[in-house]
This record gives sequence, C-alpha cells and structure tokens, in this order.
Amino acid sequence: MWDIDTVGPEALVGGQVSSSTRLTQPDDSGVLRMESRLCRTQQVTVTRNLFSPGNPVLRDSLACRKALVVISPSVDRLYGRGIMDYFASQPGWPPVEFMVLHRSEASKSLEAVVEVCERAAAAGLRRTAPIVAIGGGVCCDICGLAAALYRRGTPHIKIPTTLVGLVDAGIGIKNAVNHGGRKSALGSFHSPEHSLLDVGFLASLPRRQLANGFAEIIKLAVVCDPELFSLLASNAVTLIESGFREPASAAMRTIWLSVADMLGELSQNLFEHTDFRRKADFGHTFSPHIEIASGHSILHGEAVAMDIALSAEIARELGLLAEEDLDRILSLIQAVGLLLTWPRMSVEALWASLPGIVNHRDGDLHLVVPTAIGACVYLGIEAISPQLLRTCTDRLTRRPARPPTRVRGLPGSLRPGALSDLRR
Amino acid sequence: MWDIDTVGPEALVGGQVSSSTRLTQPDDSGVLRMESRLCRTQQVTVTRNLFSPGNPVLRDSLACRKALVVISPSVDRLYGRGIMDYFASQPGWPPVEFMVLHRSEASKSLEAVVEVCERAAAAGLRRTAPIVAIGGGVCCDICGLAAALYRRGTPHIKIPTTLVGLVDAGIGIKNAVNHGGRKSALGSFHSPEHSLLDVGFLASLPRRQLANGFAEIIKLAVVCDPELFSLLASNAVTLIESGFREPASAAMRTIWLSVADMLGELSQNLFEHTDFRRKADFGHTFSPHIEIASGHSILHGEAVAMDIALSAEIARELGLLAEEDLDRILSLIQAVGLLLTWPRMSVEALWASLPGIVNHRDGDLHLVVPTAIGACVYLGIEAISPQLLRTCTDRLTRRPARPPTRVRGLPGSLRPGALSDLRR
Repeated sequence: MWDIDTVGPEALVGGQVSSSTRLTQPDDSGVLRMESRLCRTQQVTVTRNLFSPGNPVLRDSLACRKALVVISPSVDRLYGRGIMDYFASQPGWPPVEFMVLHRSEASKSLEAVVEVCERAAAAGLRRTAPIVAIGGGVCCDICGLAAALYRRGTPHIKIPTTLVGLVDAGIGIKNAVNHGGRKSALGSFHSPEHSLLDVGFLASLPRRQLANGFAEIIKLAVVCDPELFSLLASNAVTLIESGFREPASAAMRTIWLSVADMLGELSQNLFEHTDFRRKADFGHTFSPHIEIASGHSILHGEAVAMDIALSAEIARELGLLAEEDLDRILSLIQAVGLLLTWPRMSVEALWASLPGIVNHRDGDLHLVVPTAIGACVYLGIEAISPQLLRTCTDRLTRRPARPPTRVRGLPGSLRPGALSDLRR
Repeated sequence: MWDIDTVGPEALVGGQVSSSTRLTQPDDSGVLRMESRLCRTQQVTVTRNLFSPGNPVLRDSLACRKALVVISPSVDRLYGRGIMDYFASQPGWPPVEFMVLHRSEASKSLEAVVEVCERAAAAGLRRTAPIVAIGGGVCCDICGLAAALYRRGTPHIKIPTTLVGLVDAGIGIKNAVNHGGRKSALGSFHSPEHSLLDVGFLASLPRRQLANGFAEIIKLAVVCDPELFSLLASNAVTLIESGFREPASAAMRTIWLSVADMLGELSQNLFEHTDFRRKADFGHTFSPHIEIASGHSILHGEAVAMDIALSAEIARELGLLAEEDLDRILSLIQAVGLLLTWPRMSVEALWASLPGIVNHRDGDLHLVVPTAIGACVYLGIEAISPQLLRTCTDRLTRRPARPPTRVRGLPGSLRPGALSDLRR
C-alpha cells in the first residue's frame, strides 16, 4: 500500500497566491486522491488622485512588472493623457502597453475577451505580468475573464471608474460575458490582485451612470445595512447632483460601507458552491431578462432597480414587508432618478425567463425579498405566479412619479457602524 | 478600526469542493483584504469494463445528477452503442444528453469549447451537473475548459480512451485550447471531480495512437522513474503490439506507475505559481513548435518524442548525460515506433520559437534535460544556441533506424517501488 504525501509551499508568492496539494492512495483498489488547496489574497484600496504622479498605490502594486493597461473609450477621452503621463513619470519602469477596449454591455462577449488575450500575447506578457483594467463594469468583466484564460490564469488589477464598478464589478471575483442571449453565461471566479478605488472618477460620470450604480448600493442597503439606507435617504440626491463631491464625508462613507457590505456578503460563499441563497442576488432575478429583452438599452443597474422594486412589491403583496418600508424603498429608487418598471415588459416573457434562473441557482429560485430595511427572506418558485407578477407590476406602474428629493430616513437612532452586520 | 472575519463552511460539499474566506481591514488607511481558500478533491480510479452494466464506478460518481456526455467520433463508432446501453440500463436515472464532438488537435479551439457550453445550456445543465468527457486528449481538454467556463465553473468527469489521455490529459487539472497559432494559449486550471481509467479502451487504439501515448510515459520514465523505464524497455513493444492486453501485469503496472508519477510531479506545483521548473515539462519545450509547424500532422506525443530525443542529445553534447543512457533513451523511442526528428524541421524556426516558451515560463527556458535514467537538470536559454540545436539535430538524423525490438534495460537491481520518488 502506498501513501504519497506531497505538500507544496504554503508561503505567499508575490503576495497573492499559495497552494498545497496532497496525493493519497486511500485503499488498495486502484484509487488515487488528489486534494488541492489554492489560496489567493485580494486587496481593495480606497484612494484619491490615483494617477497623480506622487501617489504610490498603483506603482507599488505593479512592482516593476510589465503590464497591459486596458481602458474604456470614455476613460481614454477624459483621463487618457493623465494616465499616460502617470506611467511615463515613473522612472525605471518596464514598458506598459495600452489598449482602448471599444465594448459595451451589448458586445461584452467572448470575442472581446479574446481581443484582450491577443493583445496580451502580442505584448509578450508573462505569467506574472498583470492586465490592468481601467473602466466600468464591462471593461472589468472582460479583463477579468481574459486574465483568467490567458496562459491558464495571470494576475489582474481592477481600477473601476464608474459607480457600479466601484461597488460591484471592480471588487468581486466573478467575471463573465454574455453569450447566446444569456446574461453572464460564460465566466470564471478569478480574484483580482488589487482593486483600486478612486471616488474622483465619479465627478465626470453622467447622471444616468451614477443612478445606474446607485441601484447596486440601494440593493445592499435594503437587504443588509440600515445605516447605509439612511445615509442614502439623506444624501443620495446631493451625491448624484454633485458627482460624489458633496457631501464629501457622505460620499466616502457611502462607498466604504457599500464595498464592505458587498465583500462581506460575497465572502460568505465566495465561490457559490455551498448554497444558492445570496443576499447579493437581490435585484438580480428579474433583471437579467429585462436587460436582455431591452437589447441592453436598459442599463444593468436600471434593470436591478426595477427588480428591487418588483421584489419589494411582491414582499408587500405577500404580507412580508410593511407598506411604509416598501414606500421608503420605492421612494429612494425614484429619488435617484431610476424607474420602477419597464413599460414594455411582458409579464409572460418575464415568467418564462425564471426556469433559467432556477437552473442557474441549482434547482430553486431563491428570490431575495426584503422583510424590512436590513432584512430579507428567500422565496421559492412556488411562491411566485404570473398573476402575482402582473398585480405587482400594475401597482408599480400606477405609482406616481416623485420629484427627486430627500427620502424619509429610518425612525430612531442608528447603530454606530453597519460593519457589525458582517460578523455573522 | 474594523476587523471583519467571515469564514465559510470548511466541510466538503458533494465530496468535491470547499472554501473559506477571511475579510480583514489591516489598517486605518482605507484598505480591505480578502483571503480566499478553495479546496478541491479529485479522484482517479483505475477500473476495467467501465461500461459493463454491473460496474458501479461511473454510476456512483454521477450520483443521480443530470449530465452532458461528450464523446469523440471514434468512441461513438467503437463504443457508442455500449455506452448508451449502459446509461439506459440504470434504473431511475435522470435523462443523460449525448453529444459527439467532431474536433481534432487542429480544431481544438475556443469555438469548440463554446459548442460544448451551448449544448450544456440547451440541456439545461445546472451548476452541480457534470460534463462527462469520453475520448482522447482533445475531447478531455475541450470539455475541461467548457466546464471551467459554463456558469463560471461546473463539475466534470474525464474518461480518457487513448493512452495519452490515460496518463496525461485525462488526469491533470490543466485544460487549454490552441489560439492564434499558439499551442494551449487559452485555458484554465480546473480539477475534474473524477478521472476514470479503463485500460480496455486501448485494445481498439491504432498503433500510431498507442505510440503517441508512449511518448508521455517515456517522458516520465526518463526524468523520474527507473522502474518504469525498465518496465518499458522489457515490455513496450509487446504492449503496443497487443493493445495493452499482453503482458497483462505489465500493462496495469505501466499505467499505474505513469499515473502516480504524473500526479506526483503535478502535485509539487499544481497551479504552476511557485516556479517554472517542472519535470513534467520534459519533452514540452521544442514540441509545441513542431506540432504547430507541422500543421498538427505530427501528433502531440510524436512531437514530444522528438523533443525528448533532442533534449537528451543536448545533454550528451554538453557532457551531462552518458552516451550509454542516451542510447537507451533513443532506442526506446525508436522501439515503440516513434521518430527522433522531423526531417522538415527548420532549426532557425525552432530557435525563433523559444522566446515564446521563455515568456510562458516567466523569463527563462528551464529546458529539462536528463542526466541519467531517473534524473534531470534545467538549462537556461544561454546554454542553448542555434549551432547546438543544429549539431544535435544532425546527429539524430544520422542515427540508424532500428527494428522495434527489446531495449536494453538498466543494469543492477531495481528499487522495489518507484513511488518512493514521490516523497520529495
């Protein structure tokens, strides 16, 4: 009988990856078992003036490695010169390759991933050389998957420049592209080495893009963070109108709480293998259909907001959510300028899209619905019906549009820190 | 100061995957750190008559999950009916979808991966439902990468039916496809849940395919296993001529030692992040160029054999390998019917391909060359020159072809088990 035990180095290499493997022969019957353990460390740094020549964060992160820097067209137009100057101002750096990625959600495809991989190959990027994504969620998703596939996995650094990027696509480990009319059909779990968050990028973001990102923040606030909800209720409109310049402390606190809440939620089940009940899926059950059916004319966050509204309305209809809390949620969505429904949405088509979600969540819908600000439950497919969807959609359609103004906050005093929620 | 610590379940889920995540704020400067740990268990089972209705191994492995079974055209022709009967004979199984994958090494592309993913989607495969690959290395590679990408990673089971599949592509965790004229340019590390090895498939394998697989076995024998080398020296010709039916004990021992050696080597550095010196890379430095330059008319193992011959000849030329050991290695290659060189190979083109390998190995060539049977060293790019390549290639070209007969074994008594080599 053999017993082979080979354990690789446990020490961190490059500060990012370690692994160990154990090979055993459990019995005499021609069976070998290989247990592998892969550890990755991802850092998220909130900074300001990231591309100011004196800011060391990105320079330290690159650690003199050659890199492929992939930027979105908007970033190129608004910040391209400054970014190039930043790299040029660092003495003794290896050459950095630049690439402008002309892709939108509608063209976030495997072809786009291949395009980035081909540029990485043409630039001669080695296995330890990172791809650096500077852009919105589309750019972050494509580059993350490219890094996962190029040479069977190379490092990447994410520098999100949109609000949805800062609080979602730029900090998570999920990377996916659309395929065959299915949202995020092909992808991987591949941690970025480093996510660098600079709130300053938001100053140049169009109002629609800011509202788009707010949907993901509202999502987190509703299901897990009353402090964040109250912060939004008091400041969301000003934050949107000022491009996150005013009020400065609320801007930083909003981003920080959102990031901490999001990572706290993800870290419960980072690789999504333990179960398929995830608070972070709130707003992401009906929204894939809305995005795809609209031909991506509705942005991701806009569809998420509609999903939040519908899910909350379902909760109220089923007696799970108080009318007052529903009103708070819908008012906040409206205050930031997001719509509650898509007038052209077919309830039948929406209903028909749910079996695909059930399959993706391994056999049940696990629809996240709020039961209060900061709490939620999961509903199975049997709790939903076309009639229920129609009733709730009709109610949302009939709700009067409100002027974007302050939303009523929560009653009573708030807990000093929402982070205590993460110690579950 | 916050300190968030969220650790997910450590217990194995479905016998295969577990993970834990730790989220911390190391300091007050706007930094969060997420450490994730993903553990996977892969089982390799050597069995006989896998598709005999009474054999429980595959049935137990599937555990009543729906599956997409992907088979190569040869497997379909030779074993398709038996495989379908096997699945039909299992009472109470969910429907199994079948797909014949018409791909060769020349068309082992990302398109092929997408083809499998699309079938998995059409079949409604959920996240825990496996893709089962039954075929050679091409089929195993394509299905492994499809499983890595579909829904960001689903399980897969590999049932290799070729010799190269049994000892290499069917048991490792690396999956890749060719792209842009580069061998294995896009891929991932994604463990199969289970590799099921049935030596019986080899009985129907053409002689050329058997020789092709022997190259990978010779590779392992030369750099790490004198017992395996002697076993081959005595039995390789009979094994090839009988399709691994005779001698029966040598057949099983050859497969078992090869699998154990291969997994033992891989487990030293399974994710290839610690360094880029890997014994399993022996025969894989010059071979990618030969495969690609021949338009894949030279099979993978055939190119590996040429690489082994050239690397061994280089070692002898540099005084690292005794003439007698070189002769043993070259004689074994010739005995199984493999060629030592490709007459149309351009030394200039071969030399020009090396910087790509240097990039892939993160900055150095790490050419594996044998120093004896069972030992090797790594050479840097500075040790190689076009002149050296030409000298060695010329010597190989001048070597007389030998009739495929028994090869001289090793002198002296052998150690009782080569597995002791794995306890490094």
